[in-house]
Amino acid sequence: MQKTPGTFELLKTAPTGRARRGRLHTAHGVVQTPIFMPVGTLGTVKAMTPHEMKDLGAQIILGNTYHLFLKPGHKLVEKMGGLHQFMSWNGPILTDSGGFQIFSLKDQRKMTEEGAIFRSPIDGGEKHLLSPELAIEIQESLGSDIMMVLDECLPYPAGRDTAKTSMELSLRWAKRSLAARTRADRLMFGIVQGGMYKDLRSEYIERLVPLTHTGRTFEGIAIGGLSVGEPPELMWEMTEHCTAHMPTDKPRYLMGVGTPEDLMECIDRGIDMFDCVLPTRNARTNKLFTSTGDLNIMNACFTEDAGPLDENCSCYTCQNFSRAYLRHLALSKEILGARLNTIHNLHFYLHLLDRARLAIEEDRFPQLKAEVIAKRRSQ
Amino acid sequence: MQKTPGTFELLKTAPTGRARRGRLHTAHGVVQTPIFMPVGTLGTVKAMTPHEMKDLGAQIILGNTYHLFLKPGHKLVEKMGGLHQFMSWNGPILTDSGGFQIFSLKDQRKMTEEGAIFRSPIDGGEKHLLSPELAIEIQESLGSDIMMVLDECLPYPAGRDTAKTSMELSLRWAKRSLAARTRADRLMFGIVQGGMYKDLRSEYIERLVPLTHTGRTFEGIAIGGLSVGEPPELMWEMTEHCTAHMPTDKPRYLMGVGTPEDLMECIDRGIDMFDCVLPTRNARTNKLFTSTGDLNIMNACFTEDAGPLDENCSCYTCQNFSRAYLRHLALSKEILGARLNTIHNLHFYLHLLDRARLAIEEDRFPQLKAEVIAKRRSQ
Repeated sequence: MQKTPGTFELLKTAPTGRARRGRLHTAHGVVQTPIFMPVGTLGTVKAMTPHEMKDLGAQIILGNTYHLFLKPGHKLVEKMGGLHQFMSWNGPILTDSGGFQIFSLKDQRKMTEEGAIFRSPIDGGEKHLLSPELAIEIQESLGSDIMMVLDECLPYPAGRDTAKTSMELSLRWAKRSLAARTRADRLMFGIVQGGMYKDLRSEYIERLVPLTHTGRTFEGIAIGGLSVGEPPELMWEMTEHCTAHMPTDKPRYLMGVGTPEDLMECIDRGIDMFDCVLPTRNARTNKLFTSTGDLNIMNACFTEDAGPLDENCSCYTCQNFSRAYLRHLALSKEILGARLNTIHNLHFYLHLLDRARLAIEEDRFPQLKAEVIAKRRSQ
Repeated sequence: MQKTPGTFELLKTAPTGRARRGRLHTAHGVVQTPIFMPVGTLGTVKAMTPHEMKDLGAQIILGNTYHLFLKPGHKLVEKMGGLHQFMSWNGPILTDSGGFQIFSLKDQRKMTEEGAIFRSPIDGGEKHLLSPELAIEIQESLGSDIMMVLDECLPYPAGRDTAKTSMELSLRWAKRSLAARTRADRLMFGIVQGGMYKDLRSEYIERLVPLTHTGRTFEGIAIGGLSVGEPPELMWEMTEHCTAHMPTDKPRYLMGVGTPEDLMECIDRGIDMFDCVLPTRNARTNKLFTSTGDLNIMNACFTEDAGPLDENCSCYTCQNFSRAYLRHLALSKEILGARLNTIHNLHFYLHLLDRARLAIEEDRFPQLKAEVIAKRRSQ
């Protein structure tokens, strides 16, 4: 049954570990968690139609505030009926705030109290100020179901003082973001920063969660600033530390993560939502995820390989095409190669999460995790 | 009912003009003519899956002997079960002989009695000899349903002596091609050359049609060497001259033609089969065919255009996306843009031929032709 947008139903928590099975309600439908959200940067999940995304079982996709602000512009998208109508996707959309993309601009950005000042290569280096309020205004124009607050993302490694100063700024921005929301039916998630300092992370959570504006809080809490160059084990450890301090009644979103192993490890540590460009980006450079490990389809060993990409896969690509054909498409730089690879990689991720949800329901998530990881190491 | 491959049933000839409605039987099914055959150069119709091609109503697609010979190699394709299985297309496939591509290499090729000697940029300039026999061997390895003979394509303009000499060589090659065929269930078409000289064209036809080998003739006759730079009116005139001299009981294929107007004009002059890269190639450079004329979707006038590409079109693209969105995809160089444009352009061509077949059946092809051309000139 459809409930008020923002309602999060925690259906189950694993008896061992912290894996959770839940349901998040949005204005465009329910999201079954844990969930992987494919990235649709510029109003399209690269190489895919929205109808193919539905067929693959994608429940929710991402849009990028930073990119859509610069191209084609959020005002145009709004005029065209919002991002859902513009890209012909009627399911839930989560938009990031642009913070991470601006962080990636390195010396072409400057953080001020007011907001992030940056020059972007996308529009030829024009100067922009993205304030927390503008980030929300853009996301409301896009019609996003789940909006993210603007935050400052720290480089890795970052000193403690830098992390502390940055954290204070991001917290002030979080408060301003909450006050900037005008739409009752749209969700907003706060983002926990604090670098690799556990005490800063817990302090951040303690101060972020109680923030309210006219009675409304953040409907979900995200963990930002991870997967920025630190070793995977440290990322998992920081995630584990954060989820231990996060409320259980709100969805937890680990931003920009990760490999199939990261997903298994972090579901086990209590994460409900993930997004990552890995399956789509890797597909376009011919790097493919399989149940027995990853491969590059350009490799000469696949020249005469009549078998499917992954023996255990039921996706369109694996059901219809051989490794030899996919290699030929890759070498020939055919668009169909990027498409078939993307279908496979997205199926791999989405199906992995399908299996995770089922395993949590059936109290066997730790076994699934061990099995998936061991099998992927087998080759 | 499925008949012996090579059987051509002429169902109807228009009472005015020469438009024909027919059925050509191949080892992979029947082709309803007149027909447009999308080009799948390297074992894929660019940007499309074979299943999407079926959905669009494509009955037969092209493969390129020249390209597949060099990449991935016909022996590999054969080892993978042939081109049908390699690319997962179970309908008929026509392969050209490579003659036109070698012609396009200009100073990197040389014609000898034995065959065409060329260096190709595809494999880094290695030297190859493509003989008429090898062209057939390659096409049989690919498993092509309709094979084309190797011929020499003339530049435009070409002197009469050159045209005559070239014609004699191509005729000798046609004879050798016919003798090279080993598969009983595969069709072979001869190709009429002769430049822009009507008497050479008629002489070519007179000498080509009676050629036999062990009782088998060419199952179809193609017109080559047109649409090579001459004005459309001259191309139509040459086509009209050729079809007047061609047997009525064999399918007639006008190679590499053309615009929607060319198709209407040449169906009216008795052509049954067409292929052209225009719909697919133009799609990838954002040039789109519509019922009211052609447009470039990058044009600034479409920035805020919420309407479909073509009001009168029932394709997936026009049913789901706006001109503003397609322009955004084009500007962002998104793969989805190439895909949606290709779907639309192919639908436009295939649907135009659907309408042509129906109009011929209903004795109103000249009206359809006039209507289509007038409407496309209206904007």
